[in-house]
Amino acid sequence: MHLEHQIIKPTLLLDAAKAQQHIARMAQKARRNGVRLRPHFKTHQSATIGAWFRQEGVEAITVSSVDMARYFSDQGWQDITIAFPVNLRQMAEIGALAQQVTLGLLVESVETAVALHQLPAPANIWLKIDVGYRRTGIDWQDEGLATAVAQVICTAPHLRLRGLLTHAGHTYAARGQTAVTAIYTQMLARLQAMQKALAQHGWRLEISIGDTPSASLVDDFRGVDEIRPGNFVFYDLMQTQIGACSLEDIAVALACPVVARHPARQQLVLYGGAVHLSKEALHEADGVSYGRIARLAAAGWEILPHRVVSLSQEHGIVQGDETLVAETAVGDLLLVLPVHSCLTADLMRHYLTLDGVWLQN
Amino acid sequence: MHLEHQIIKPTLLLDAAKAQQHIARMAQKARRNGVRLRPHFKTHQSATIGAWFRQEGVEAITVSSVDMARYFSDQGWQDITIAFPVNLRQMAEIGALAQQVTLGLLVESVETAVALHQLPAPANIWLKIDVGYRRTGIDWQDEGLATAVAQVICTAPHLRLRGLLTHAGHTYAARGQTAVTAIYTQMLARLQAMQKALAQHGWRLEISIGDTPSASLVDDFRGVDEIRPGNFVFYDLMQTQIGACSLEDIAVALACPVVARHPARQQLVLYGGAVHLSKEALHEADGVSYGRIARLAAAGWEILPHRVVSLSQEHGIVQGDETLVAETAVGDLLLVLPVHSCLTADLMRHYLTLDGVWLQN
Repeated sequence: MHLEHQIIKPTLLLDAAKAQQHIARMAQKARRNGVRLRPHFKTHQSATIGAWFRQEGVEAITVSSVDMARYFSDQGWQDITIAFPVNLRQMAEIGALAQQVTLGLLVESVETAVALHQLPAPANIWLKIDVGYRRTGIDWQDEGLATAVAQVICTAPHLRLRGLLTHAGHTYAARGQTAVTAIYTQMLARLQAMQKALAQHGWRLEISIGDTPSASLVDDFRGVDEIRPGNFVFYDLMQTQIGACSLEDIAVALACPVVARHPARQQLVLYGGAVHLSKEALHEADGVSYGRIARLAAAGWEILPHRVVSLSQEHGIVQGDETLVAETAVGDLLLVLPVHSCLTADLMRHYLTLDGVWLQN
Repeated sequence: MHLEHQIIKPTLLLDAAKAQQHIARMAQKARRNGVRLRPHFKTHQSATIGAWFRQEGVEAITVSSVDMARYFSDQGWQDITIAFPVNLRQMAEIGALAQQVTLGLLVESVETAVALHQLPAPANIWLKIDVGYRRTGIDWQDEGLATAVAQVICTAPHLRLRGLLTHAGHTYAARGQTAVTAIYTQMLARLQAMQKALAQHGWRLEISIGDTPSASLVDDFRGVDEIRPGNFVFYDLMQTQIGACSLEDIAVALACPVVARHPARQQLVLYGGAVHLSKEALHEADGVSYGRIARLAAAGWEILPHRVVSLSQEHGIVQGDETLVAETAVGDLLLVLPVHSCLTADLMRHYLTLDGVWLQN
């Protein structure tokens, strides 16, 4: 059946070739640099897409929740880092995981380090370092706290102090390779300063970094042991705005039935709203965008200049032009390239490839 | 087991007594006014909560998708309006529903009216009228289009032209009872003008309105046949900002484990992010808010002055003060009153009542 006829309601289309190309390119870049690629699987949350990484030689992964770690452990992944501060309320689940896989955990406080002494099995511990994003982690200048936490970790024989880990989320506010590289360079310098300080106590610590803008735009990872990008598997409009990818690199699009036309104001109404795309918005020079419009074409999709300008629970409003509104009938399909593919994928859960194959998980 | 100990990860708490009180009050107001209450079930999407409405004598409901209509039809609801423009790609599913329940559909174009001739069973047809919100519907002044659509409907013997339906979503931009009532009054006048115009063709049409601000703040529904509020079952911060409810009326709160503390900047990090709350934001005089903080108390929860000021996929950042940060340990729970409860409920799907009972659907 032609793709067009398989779609009856909002459906997340996946250009598998593009995603596989992104995976291959990132794996190659990691190999060339001699760094471990530990991709973040929170973006796709899919066993099938996970297998594509395995085909590129990836053996270690990152997730953002205990539930996600459980899911991928059940899929056979043996080396999993939960890149989120330890949730002490899930210690039983974390302990069970530690008994089954090589588990990496993030620690940023003495309290959590103490609590981890109860773990029933070995785990790799990463000190979460804040290099300037200010979301969470030990301040990169707070050598005292880092040392105190590391000491508590090291008194437990089954906890292995593995390294320093950061997420330089402030690259998301950068625009272009020069700006992203400047943040990357500063981040690395800050981590290396901490690494050097802790080396005086005899700790030899790895450095793990992870954000798609840096991983996409930086070519030289000297000094780094591990990279953990996630979003790059699909990319999205946010990454385009940063300059980490082109619009053509985006590998997912929400296919939406057109349910109403408003020629007078050159708008179309899509069945596709906040419960499908998420309410993540992009603030562009000429207004807010909840997604960029595309339409099915012979090879994949063709990107149009129009945007989703308003979003309610199930409705998306497209600001088109005379031509688009004239050419589009109620019942037609339009595609929306998402602002933030991680959130859209989390909402949609399933993917339909351009070959018409459903990836159910 | 005490509620506090049942919660290990982000969990949507429901104050069932508050929700039931909102339902009872709205049902009473509808009875007093002699209007049909056809509540919108997109807010809760729950069979159990649906049953609470039934106990108040509600027999007719509103949903926003064909899938939701199917779900509530399976739960025994016999009179269901899909308050969303007909999605022509789901005609087979819509036809199957029409064979099973009293189905209400919204029409706003001649094309859709023509397409509905194929329906295999009777349906109630509502003309969707745009009274000024500008999302979708026939412009309230476009008597010509309304007449044309109505005529196409009436040529099909199984399509029953039932009335005029609107969603005055622009009440969401209003603040306070006077402003909301002004929009309500204008809306009703516009619908009645259209009703009168169409009456000249012999059509006697009902009027159906539906938005929580009007339904909460207006007391006199003369001229209206049906009200379709949804959000009022839970309310949320957006409704508080409008003045449709008080903070104490909000019946749901996301319980989130605290995973990190940052005393220097008086912040706490919650396990609870965009995939739990949605990224709906409230723009307040002193900054953006993704939720208001509360904590478990002897009777339900106690509302604190603090807010979630930043949200990523799984993290929520609370801007607290010295006291809050000092009193809160990693592993404690904080609650977040949602900005938009419909989106939070859609993401969470399950509810834990204050009595410790899980509502699974």
